Amino acid sequence: MPESVRVPTEDELQRILRRGVSEIVPEEEFVSALRSGKHLRLKQGFDPTRPVITLGWTVGLRKLRLLQDLGHTVVVIIGDWTARIGDPSGKSETRPMLTEEEVMENSEAILQQFFKILDPERTEIRRQTEWFDSFALTDVVRLAARFTVAQILERDDFAQRFSEHTPIGIHELLYPLLQAYDSVAIESDVEFGGTDQKFNNLVGRELQRMMGQKSGPAGLGQAVYLVPLLVGLDGKKKMSQSLDNYIAIDHEPNDMYGKVMNIPDEVVADYFELLTDTPDEDVAAARETAASGGAAARDLKMRLGREIVAQFHGEKMAEAAEVEFSRVFSAGEQPRDVPQHPLSFNGGPKEVDIVELLHLTGLAPSKGEARRLVQQGAVESDGVRITEVRPTLRPGTILRIGKHKFLQMVDTESTRKGDE
Amino acid sequence: MPESVRVPTEDELQRILRRGVSEIVPEEEFVSALRSGKHLRLKQGFDPTRPVITLGWTVGLRKLRLLQDLGHTVVVIIGDWTARIGDPSGKSETRPMLTEEEVMENSEAILQQFFKILDPERTEIRRQTEWFDSFALTDVVRLAARFTVAQILERDDFAQRFSEHTPIGIHELLYPLLQAYDSVAIESDVEFGGTDQKFNNLVGRELQRMMGQKSGPAGLGQAVYLVPLLVGLDGKKKMSQSLDNYIAIDHEPNDMYGKVMNIPDEVVADYFELLTDTPDEDVAAARETAASGGAAARDLKMRLGREIVAQFHGEKMAEAAEVEFSRVFSAGEQPRDVPQHPLSFNGGPKEVDIVELLHLTGLAPSKGEARRLVQQGAVESDGVRITEVRPTLRPGTILRIGKHKFLQMVDTESTRKGDE
Repeated sequence: MPESVRVPTEDELQRILRRGVSEIVPEEEFVSALRSGKHLRLKQGFDPTRPVITLGWTVGLRKLRLLQDLGHTVVVIIGDWTARIGDPSGKSETRPMLTEEEVMENSEAILQQFFKILDPERTEIRRQTEWFDSFALTDVVRLAARFTVAQILERDDFAQRFSEHTPIGIHELLYPLLQAYDSVAIESDVEFGGTDQKFNNLVGRELQRMMGQKSGPAGLGQAVYLVPLLVGLDGKKKMSQSLDNYIAIDHEPNDMYGKVMNIPDEVVADYFELLTDTPDEDVAAARETAASGGAAARDLKMRLGREIVAQFHGEKMAEAAEVEFSRVFSAGEQPRDVPQHPLSFNGGPKEVDIVELLHLTGLAPSKGEARRLVQQGAVESDGVRITEVRPTLRPGTILRIGKHKFLQMVDTESTRKGDE
Repeated sequence: MPESVRVPTEDELQRILRRGVSEIVPEEEFVSALRSGKHLRLKQGFDPTRPVITLGWTVGLRKLRLLQDLGHTVVVIIGDWTARIGDPSGKSETRPMLTEEEVMENSEAILQQFFKILDPERTEIRRQTEWFDSFALTDVVRLAARFTVAQILERDDFAQRFSEHTPIGIHELLYPLLQAYDSVAIESDVEFGGTDQKFNNLVGRELQRMMGQKSGPAGLGQAVYLVPLLVGLDGKKKMSQSLDNYIAIDHEPNDMYGKVMNIPDEVVADYFELLTDTPDEDVAAARETAASGGAAARDLKMRLGREIVAQFHGEKMAEAAEVEFSRVFSAGEQPRDVPQHPLSFNGGPKEVDIVELLHLTGLAPSKGEARRLVQQGAVESDGVRITEVRPTLRPGTILRIGKHKFLQMVDTESTRKGDE
């Protein structure tokens, strides 16, 4: 289908090239193509191993949407071949082998989340298995022969592992080549990804050229568009599901809002820049306000929470989340629905290992973290700071962990009676 | 088919274990199996890229025949998949891509030569494409995941190239794994090869075990039987077609005999040991005789020539070759059939670039070698040593290069007239 493409205004172009972008290689090819109104195929792959899409993903998806609005096509690649093979070395628990049904279910869920940002009308959906199911041994060997061991080991993480003598499976050298072949298969013009994908995506450019493909903004292979990695709720590491420092697109409004309120002040302006349409000058102002701390910083974070929730759940839900949060936060009240934790009290008070409890209930990701929370005075029992690791709790006691997490103790006996 | 296997006598066992063997890993497993009369599947692969089988091959083939005579089965693997892909990097001229017809033609020729030593009744012929034509990308990745980059780079030649920064194609890391998979496919118990194959063949043992295969003399994966690399006619390097220092099984009797007469004295005893059934004590004696040089050494070499020619062409042809050689050598006569080289003389003498000529006619493998031959006085023109690189030759001049190579100059005009 021929696409009618609009040339961006200078303002739009600046937004595409400057905001929330780490690097575009080669930028001049990409800019020329946009200025000349050439239709571009924009590649965005995903791994359907888990149906979770974090806010980190939306940094790139938002740029893709801008380009779709100009008439360009996004080609989403479902990494179904990769997910179905899992981690063939069996070493990685985070990469299990999925059945075709699981892959399709997860992919459906992910695409639904993508389409909260992307325009389905200008999105083409492709599956890796379309080309890899019929990939023969000869194809693999011919593909592998195009690159040397040294070239692939140049990739930062490989170089480090190799020098540290951490085992690298031979199949791991093949993965960048397979990802590059995806670009050949769909004839992509620009591949989108986080800065950590620069090496892999440039291999795609090289392979397209080696195979004589005239794709790319200048016919010289795909360009690569690299977006910054969004920092997670811990304010330090890349937002990711495995680090449990994430907000997912499909998190409930109150949960999402509360999580935004929990991010460190230092990253608030970055969130505005990468996740919202807040004008650049407001982002700059936000950077100063956040740094000054206090009530202004809190209000700023509330604005961020509202904007983010609104994107995925609408304005109304965003307002409701804010109201609920304000009620709890300002009044020191407990939220309406405090989760309950059954414990065998036999009707009376009981000494409880708080570290064990926080870890068991998932309120702290590890015992070390639980211990740290108690030491920092972040845990209250009915409004009183807990100072020892084995405090005495009563049925009905409400624990408060940090600002926004609550847990009410319930006597197992009363629970059982209620069941009868 | 159930095989009836005979347990070797101690003498036979010593011949299998000690003569013409570099290493058997693990030897105790192999010996126990032979002593217990367990039937073994003995793997011997070959590359059908060229239809040439040198005497170097026969070192291992002769051991295989000994084992066949005890009732064991040789499984010959035609490397047809490897030959059909050639060198996928396109860098190696010695590994062109073959058509299926070429592969089959060469394989036929090679098998015919194998069967001058092997017993066809106890030989199973398999083709790599039987298992690799249906090998999918998932199979490759799962196979590759079983080994690490460091493990494969341990192989001597890879280690050296890697440290010297000589490019190693990623596909090259896959080849040892594919060769190992051959062992899985045919469930081999012992793999035969030259000492340079130790690493590759042990990968086969490991892969069989990883894949839970109970093959091998002790059910722990294949053993590897390594034979010494036969030194070529230069007395220095491994005998190989690409170095042009070889005798092929299908060389004509006179040619084969003459080539044996050209090997350096130092390797004569090794040839007796590895290529003939000459008793061990005679081999030991030969080592001394060869070292002493002179007529005894020449006679020894003639015995070697006769024995080798007899193996492939029969006793009668061997005798004839010896007679012809003696005639030429002792009498200084020219052989009966001197190859003729047409040159445009216009009836008179002509200055000829002898280096160019020797290279062009293949009498010297390179121009450097041709120059060396002239400098060493190894080239005669009608019985007179040539000392300059542009001697004057006449129609009918006979060049003698070394002891046994001849070339007669013929005037192109007279050739043409003959054609008319």
